[in-house]
Amino acid sequence: MSKARLNALSDGVFAILLTILILEFKPVNIHPGGLLPLMLKQGPLFAMYVMSYVYVGTSWLFHHDYFIYVKKTNRTLNILNLFLLFTVTLVNYAMVLIIEALTNGNHLDIQIGIIVYDLVAMLISFSFLILYRYLEHHPELQNFTGIKDHYSRIRSDPARSVTIYGASIIASFFSNILAGILLIGGVIFHFVAYLRYSQVIKIGVKKNSVK
Amino acid sequence: MSKARLNALSDGVFAILLTILILEFKPVNIHPGGLLPLMLKQGPLFAMYVMSYVYVGTSWLFHHDYFIYVKKTNRTLNILNLFLLFTVTLVNYAMVLIIEALTNGNHLDIQIGIIVYDLVAMLISFSFLILYRYLEHHPELQNFTGIKDHYSRIRSDPARSVTIYGASIIASFFSNILAGILLIGGVIFHFVAYLRYSQVIKIGVKKNSVK
Amino acid sequence: MSKARLNALSDGVFAILLTILILEFKPVNIHPGGLLPLMLKQGPLFAMYVMSYVYVGTSWLFHHDYFIYVKKTNRTLNILNLFLLFTVTLVNYAMVLIIEALTNGNHLDIQIGIIVYDLVAMLISFSFLILYRYLEHHPELQNFTGIKDHYSRIRSDPARSVTIYGASIIASFFSNILAGILLIGGVIFHFVAYLRYSQVIKIGVKKNSVK
Amino acid sequence: MSKARLNALSDGVFAILLTILILEFKPVNIHPGGLLPLMLKQGPLFAMYVMSYVYVGTSWLFHHDYFIYVKKTNRTLNILNLFLLFTVTLVNYAMVLIIEALTNGNHLDIQIGIIVYDLVAMLISFSFLILYRYLEHHPELQNFTGIKDHYSRIRSDPARSVTIYGASIIASFFSNILAGILLIGGVIFHFVAYLRYSQVIKIGVKKNSVK
Repeated sequence: MSKARLNALSDGVFAILLTILILEFKPVNIHPGGLLPLMLKQGPLFAMYVMSYVYVGTSWLFHHDYFIYVKKTNRTLNILNLFLLFTVTLVNYAMVLIIEALTNGNHLDIQIGIIVYDLVAMLISFSFLILYRYLEHHPELQNFTGIKDHYSRIRSDPARSVTIYGASIIASFFSNILAGILLIGGVIFHFVAYLRYSQVIKIGVKKNSVK
Repeated sequence: MSKARLNALSDGVFAILLTILILEFKPVNIHPGGLLPLMLKQGPLFAMYVMSYVYVGTSWLFHHDYFIYVKKTNRTLNILNLFLLFTVTLVNYAMVLIIEALTNGNHLDIQIGIIVYDLVAMLISFSFLILYRYLEHHPELQNFTGIKDHYSRIRSDPARSVTIYGASIIASFFSNILAGILLIGGVIFHFVAYLRYSQVIKIGVKKNSVK
Repeated sequence: MSKARLNALSDGVFAILLTILILEFKPVNIHPGGLLPLMLKQGPLFAMYVMSYVYVGTSWLFHHDYFIYVKKTNRTLNILNLFLLFTVTLVNYAMVLIIEALTNGNHLDIQIGIIVYDLVAMLISFSFLILYRYLEHHPELQNFTGIKDHYSRIRSDPARSVTIYGASIIASFFSNILAGILLIGGVIFHFVAYLRYSQVIKIGVKKNSVK
Repeated sequence: MSKARLNALSDGVFAILLTILILEFKPVNIHPGGLLPLMLKQGPLFAMYVMSYVYVGTSWLFHHDYFIYVKKTNRTLNILNLFLLFTVTLVNYAMVLIIEALTNGNHLDIQIGIIVYDLVAMLISFSFLILYRYLEHHPELQNFTGIKDHYSRIRSDPARSVTIYGASIIASFFSNILAGILLIGGVIFHFVAYLRYSQVIKIGVKKNSVK
């Protein structure tokens, strides 16, 4: 089966997610003269939005590069991809939780919001891990040889990301600020991991001289 | 006519549906400290969301595989496809009904929500049935020969699915829980039917040695 | 310039429109036991939704067939297409006006809703007319010869559709029911016109023996 | 890397933006007979919608033409494109700010709305500038030779657009009407700049005789 429609569906989901994140925290029913104070108060919320955009964008970059390796799709890969899209969709939900909690300012609510976001991030890492493992064991779907080699370099990344998000969950029982920093750190880690990973792809493509 | 745009439109509709389902039950205006109890209470609603995601995802898988069989489209197939997309769009509406009914907890409202979802599911089965029949009788649109053979194996699936959803409607007059289980059973049945059906496609493609 | 991206953007806009129409009239905050009476009351609203879906779907069918004729795009065609998408987007707005007016039941509000819908429909017919005329006068963008011949048969369609919607506007000053019937008649007219028009395309393609 | 998925993601984001702008100012809960006065009052809001549609549409036209020049994409271009999409997404937010401010009529709120829109517009110009510069310095990604020549003609456009939006910000401290005119002028300037720029592309393509 061609991977064209899998990519079309996935690009659609990513495009919608990237676009609707901003819709979640728009000011409505502002009392006259209240726009500026409201926007200043929304600063941390906007930071959450930027973080979520970077996170979903990075997930797209990973997805994009992963499917360069994929020659064709099959039933199982289609289903695994739908599971991945499901987990990415949850980012919007987790972001709204944190935004709502930050708005009412309750310590417990903020903690729960951060924990849910951490769990969603773990789930996304897990679903990517399954995708990588599946491709690794199905050479008939691969575009290039030597993928195993490259995977060995990034193999420990999911474990690392689980460690960061796990630490954020534990930290949330002591300090929401520390937990939030670890959460943001996890997202930054993904982006840096992408920069490393895409470098690996480049080498792989060159070594095998395929388009 | 090429089927490229039909697929693009369909993938767009499926992508939007998969992404906006989650938007329907986000917590808003939580009173301070009320996030955790609210989320626990939303458990059954989240189950409805997961079920709907699986249902729409399975529909995409069926749609995806169906159009592997299709070489090109024509006016009638475009229109039948728009009708199919219409019925799939209604899943969001039916899900919201059940979520609203579960939130206010009224027995009659929940029953109506389940019945509407059952009717929508029957309509989707019906619109897929029309698509299959149409392709079966238009060899000029087919990608492979021998489709009739394969269809004969899955021919009774729509009848089965109508039986399950019909049983759920009847059961709803006695017990919402039983009706809900039958509804979920119907969605699982679709997914299992897909796994069987896609196997059939694989054989068909191999037998005729086409890409 | 290739028409691939023009089509991708257009299919995206049509897909979103077809999917979000249903989001406009979902029941929220139902008082316990109030779901069934609410749904029965929403019957006319649902009819408006079905009509709008058929209208947008028909517009996609026209757009789809039009671009079979188009070999490549240029700057002006891109801009005319953006204008067409703009007018189609307004269908959602007009539908919401009628739904809101039907909900509050005010005679004047319903009249205004119908008139706005009529004006939007005229605008869509007008933007399609411009697209047809532009292609007619730019043979370098055409896929087949003999288009002029075919256009001559459908040339009077826009004038007819303007007549129907104009009659609906005038009728609205006497009877909203008559105006509504004419509006629905206009949408049905478009669908029938499509069936005639697509027949014309088929002939054109065959005559010139091009893919 | 092929640019197919970058384009698919971008077209998805642009399509969603173009479609959801209209969702922001629909009338809800109209009191009976209040539809016409409400719509008349919404005139300036509708103007903001049309302006934003033209702005996002023009951005798509620029994006479309830019990627005609691009033969293939790479990691950095993917990331720069995600940044561009981020800035375009903010148009919806800025439009809502102005709409909310115009609705409550407060002078200070309107000024802030205009300033935010100006800043978003500057950010979009900036992200396009980065895209142009990047391609200019990476011949291996270019589709045609002689791009440098063409860029030299449009090089001063970003500076001009920053000047207009900067003037609008300064003007907002004296008169919101003047600031608004300058903002609209900036959007019109972009559209006119596009008409000039796309002309340049045409010449470039012809000179090098590439499809």
